[in-house]
Amino acid sequence: MLYFRCDYQEGAHPLILQRLVQTNLEQLDGYGEDRYTRSAKEKILKACGCPSGEVFLLVGGTQTNATVIGTLLRDYEGAVAVDSGHIGVHEAGAIEYTHHKVLTLSGARGKMEASALEAYLEAFYADPNKDHMVWPGLVYISLPTEYGTLYSRAELEALKAVCGRFKLPLYVDGARLGYALASPACDFSLADLKELCDVFYIGGTKVGSLCGEAVVFPAGAPAHFFTSVKQHGALLAKGRLLGLQFDTLFTDGLYLELGRNAMARAQEMIAVLKEKGIPFFLESPTNQQFVILENRYMEQLSAQVAFDIWQPYDATHTVVRFATSWATTPAQIAQLKQFL
Amino acid sequence: MLYFRCDYQEGAHPLILQRLVQTNLEQLDGYGEDRYTRSAKEKILKACGCPSGEVFLLVGGTQTNATVIGTLLRDYEGAVAVDSGHIGVHEAGAIEYTHHKVLTLSGARGKMEASALEAYLEAFYADPNKDHMVWPGLVYISLPTEYGTLYSRAELEALKAVCGRFKLPLYVDGARLGYALASPACDFSLADLKELCDVFYIGGTKVGSLCGEAVVFPAGAPAHFFTSVKQHGALLAKGRLLGLQFDTLFTDGLYLELGRNAMARAQEMIAVLKEKGIPFFLESPTNQQFVILENRYMEQLSAQVAFDIWQPYDATHTVVRFATSWATTPAQIAQLKQFL
Amino acid sequence: MLYFRCDYQEGAHPLILQRLVQTNLEQLDGYGEDRYTRSAKEKILKACGCPSGEVFLLVGGTQTNATVIGTLLRDYEGAVAVDSGHIGVHEAGAIEYTHHKVLTLSGARGKMEASALEAYLEAFYADPNKDHMVWPGLVYISLPTEYGTLYSRAELEALKAVCGRFKLPLYVDGARLGYALASPACDFSLADLKELCDVFYIGGTKVGSLCGEAVVFPAGAPAHFFTSVKQHGALLAKGRLLGLQFDTLFTDGLYLELGRNAMARAQEMIAVLKEKGIPFFLESPTNQQFVILENRYMEQLSAQVAFDIWQPYDATHTVVRFATSWATTPAQIAQLKQFL
Amino acid sequence: MLYFRCDYQEGAHPLILQRLVQTNLEQLDGYGEDRYTRSAKEKILKACGCPSGEVFLLVGGTQTNATVIGTLLRDYEGAVAVDSGHIGVHEAGAIEYTHHKVLTLSGARGKMEASALEAYLEAFYADPNKDHMVWPGLVYISLPTEYGTLYSRAELEALKAVCGRFKLPLYVDGARLGYALASPACDFSLADLKELCDVFYIGGTKVGSLCGEAVVFPAGAPAHFFTSVKQHGALLAKGRLLGLQFDTLFTDGLYLELGRNAMARAQEMIAVLKEKGIPFFLESPTNQQFVILENRYMEQLSAQVAFDIWQPYDATHTVVRFATSWATTPAQIAQLKQFL
Repeated sequence: MLYFRCDYQEGAHPLILQRLVQTNLEQLDGYGEDRYTRSAKEKILKACGCPSGEVFLLVGGTQTNATVIGTLLRDYEGAVAVDSGHIGVHEAGAIEYTHHKVLTLSGARGKMEASALEAYLEAFYADPNKDHMVWPGLVYISLPTEYGTLYSRAELEALKAVCGRFKLPLYVDGARLGYALASPACDFSLADLKELCDVFYIGGTKVGSLCGEAVVFPAGAPAHFFTSVKQHGALLAKGRLLGLQFDTLFTDGLYLELGRNAMARAQEMIAVLKEKGIPFFLESPTNQQFVILENRYMEQLSAQVAFDIWQPYDATHTVVRFATSWATTPAQIAQLKQFL
Repeated sequence: MLYFRCDYQEGAHPLILQRLVQTNLEQLDGYGEDRYTRSAKEKILKACGCPSGEVFLLVGGTQTNATVIGTLLRDYEGAVAVDSGHIGVHEAGAIEYTHHKVLTLSGARGKMEASALEAYLEAFYADPNKDHMVWPGLVYISLPTEYGTLYSRAELEALKAVCGRFKLPLYVDGARLGYALASPACDFSLADLKELCDVFYIGGTKVGSLCGEAVVFPAGAPAHFFTSVKQHGALLAKGRLLGLQFDTLFTDGLYLELGRNAMARAQEMIAVLKEKGIPFFLESPTNQQFVILENRYMEQLSAQVAFDIWQPYDATHTVVRFATSWATTPAQIAQLKQFL
Repeated sequence: MLYFRCDYQEGAHPLILQRLVQTNLEQLDGYGEDRYTRSAKEKILKACGCPSGEVFLLVGGTQTNATVIGTLLRDYEGAVAVDSGHIGVHEAGAIEYTHHKVLTLSGARGKMEASALEAYLEAFYADPNKDHMVWPGLVYISLPTEYGTLYSRAELEALKAVCGRFKLPLYVDGARLGYALASPACDFSLADLKELCDVFYIGGTKVGSLCGEAVVFPAGAPAHFFTSVKQHGALLAKGRLLGLQFDTLFTDGLYLELGRNAMARAQEMIAVLKEKGIPFFLESPTNQQFVILENRYMEQLSAQVAFDIWQPYDATHTVVRFATSWATTPAQIAQLKQFL
Repeated sequence: MLYFRCDYQEGAHPLILQRLVQTNLEQLDGYGEDRYTRSAKEKILKACGCPSGEVFLLVGGTQTNATVIGTLLRDYEGAVAVDSGHIGVHEAGAIEYTHHKVLTLSGARGKMEASALEAYLEAFYADPNKDHMVWPGLVYISLPTEYGTLYSRAELEALKAVCGRFKLPLYVDGARLGYALASPACDFSLADLKELCDVFYIGGTKVGSLCGEAVVFPAGAPAHFFTSVKQHGALLAKGRLLGLQFDTLFTDGLYLELGRNAMARAQEMIAVLKEKGIPFFLESPTNQQFVILENRYMEQLSAQVAFDIWQPYDATHTVVRFATSWATTPAQIAQLKQFL
């Protein structure tokens, strides 16, 4: 079986495992108080261009979103997101479990438009009943989005400006941030993010580590955020596992290199899909590609290739996702070409 | 100033105050353990045709919705409602505060269509990712809706059938139930509700009492619901205040009589509005009427008549609400006619 | 049956009902935007000596505690209270329902000792594992306590000083505040409270109103507290019901007058109990008296007098509560004397 | 520096790393749908003697407690635990974050006594105010306890009998279960647990894995527990990481073997501590040893040996913890002997 279902179907980049093996019997303090975690945090802050910021290493994405959003919001506030936003759809209500509403805007191919955000906020503040409503407390976007689409620098600046006008922090879910940054379509860098948003996380799970997401607060974390992480069950006793992985990913530019591999393979895959005449559901400049398959063909293909069933397209077609990753090889693309 | 803003702008029906005065110095047990509360519950259950059901008297609507929904749902479940549903819009996130998501469907003039509910539920159960999503745990509708519209018996039966197919309780928010039941367009009775839904509340606040909502569980309440009411801060120490009010409302058919007054006045008001050529935003068979006013006219009128600004219609018009109530008099309608 | 069970067994002071009747058909805006609520708030702030503070009128005590505490605390914080504190024992977990732990100290006859609070806080801040623990976020005391005992001004100042040292707000649950203030043992006034604590509520339910508690923030309320009140289901649509009651209670000193009646009757009752040789469980200077009854005697007495069973004392005795109130008459005390 | 601070200061047992390396590039489905997770679950259920039970693999202990307890309890219920129970002290309020109170009993050297539990439950059910209180909904114990102490089979049976009488599930936090089972003082086996409690978790983090706790429901899990795990942010995308670790731990009896190593070293360490005349705070039959150090001596020692500061003993002494683990070597014990 050939797997293109997602970008978390292999283990970790071999360098990560090598370091886990090398350091295995070192005796280290728990809960992130070890030297590898400290080193990882320094390297991340340096890469992000905000050496006086703060980084926290958490285990998974849903957990990270709930911890960050639950901590940043006051009880009467909610998180503004587009209708396809991961927090509103595929996190099993983890945000609501923190007491907070996901305030939903219509998205444009997974993206939040600054104009739509502004219109919503203006309408909210003009609403005579707003005191009976959930107040917008932060804005959540995914980068890249759940549809693989990407914000331009100008779009992020526009969102940030609207957030600034209404004093709302902008939070970027970077579960696949490495694949955004490595996209040829990306016109900003990791170091730009500190100015384009207020808090973001750098996804490890989907970009080469076994697990782990690094939350970056460029201007410092909320008070006692460590305790909030613990309260959310997101504090790893053996913090070294996260520290070593991120330390490796942020040594010698590995994180971006992994992103570039996924993008190179994605471009090859796009070429193959186009060559085979498979229609695209939308154009994505990152490692996730959404195409439309006729249902019987889809079933046949699924005997040899694993892909992700996304949503019905019409009565006889389905939107499916093919994803490349840090681990995808040219040989796998070649094999896909044969099977299609 | 002439008030048509809402149906809770007066105090209580005079008979209620009279009984509060008469019984004032009787010494009674607290927390609903008094004879008036017991009597009220019996009368309500009799009027609802389910003498073996259970009734709880709570103070207000948002509180009632949060207590009932928070108690009926398991943690992984949400409440399905239409986009205009009170719980999703104007209760300040009280449902999310109980940990639960409001799962939103598009409504049709405030109503949930059985076909839309069924389509959503079928899609949910067919979704390969449903284990990562909030499960539908109950269905919430307002009767009448926030737009004053009304479900027919057939529509309720259709919703109930879909709920039954998917084993979901159907919960009816009856904040204005008296105005639904008294509408000439209503083709079911209070005693029918026990079969048309699984739990409902009979609104007192908007139909003649100072406060109070009576939750009816035709087939019995969830275990320890009393404790849940206390946990939600919804238990009144002087339960007599609620007991006496509902006992009065359910003596000699007063509750329905109050509904009929509001409907008689509403029909007179509709005639006046039509006579004056004011366009209706939608047709409502109950006590709330939504009309479209030109903005400058609206401002002038507001010097003499209080109404509720509902939502912008277009750049130069606004949708506003005029409501009658148990207390509205023919003289007030006549005066409105002069001012329009 | 003669009732001494509690201080909420009658309705409301007659003046309150009289004003409800007089104003009943006035058309007023809802949600506390009426003239009576405005007037009540002004009078309360004047009586409290903090005209620039803010007041919110809520319905009941558990609800008030959950709303205030849930709003003041950040997620990682808990409320410090003594083991007999109402929030930790008899509110059905309403505080935990807001996500927050009640951090429990041993109390001394219902009171929190400044030295015990300080010792706890010093130990907490010295604990190397404090980041894995719930942080103290506010201090909760009841005034009078659940055992009817009373803090002196010096004791309150000492608590306030400890709170100040650790930057914790001190919150006073004044469900029976009127009975504290009217006690001959009380050496502070209502107007002193603004300096003795950071936020407090003035109980109406137990001191002459049908329902209602007035939360006073001497230095202003948290942002959007109105929305928090709504979110907690604590916002009354007919705010006039609360406004009129508190306006009456704070006109011509009625609130304190009601307290004085309860205290005069309490002193008579104490004399009767002592005369009959009934041992006291503890000495209380307010309207609640806790005595020890032999179990068979208790059962006999309960045929004629209603009292509250508090806790077992030993195998053959029980602690019971007799309470006077604003409504207790000398005749009732005389009758109690006969029955004992 | 010699480390005896805790049992999570090394990485993972080398066999675990070896298997992570060997399987690293296999393409596997996420979220626990891989063959290694399936195999691990089968082996665990077999070792537990309940092949028809259900197992879920979560990441960490606090998370596991919150997920299990939050799911098993209804809103009006709390978890009964002793005062030293991890959930009430060192999990940063994670249980309260799920809405539930931790109902605290006095423990005896970390253990809950069946008689104390029974007395509490009898008092609760006899309390006339119990409807205003948090209902006991499950009983939580740690095995071994936070003080390293161990329940005997008879003690567990007695607790289970009390739980059975009051229809409460008994939940065992087995963060260090391997060290309990390997203790010479332990008179029950892993396969006995299915009858001694209702749900338990087998700790991996502290017994040889990088992370991971296996929750065992001998009689089947609550409905949609997978979704609850996701909602709690406890679902690992690369479930293989947990699957491979537990599969390794439950192959050829490795889990118990690791426990036996810790116990052998613990007995050597106890001998050394006794030989040096260091007084024990309490007697522990497992891998955690609590001793009393004079404060100046403690400070000197800490330059060479890392241990955990537990609690003040008196003005000049402190209780500290020395822990062995699966990784402790005889050489480390010998070195400790030199430093003491």
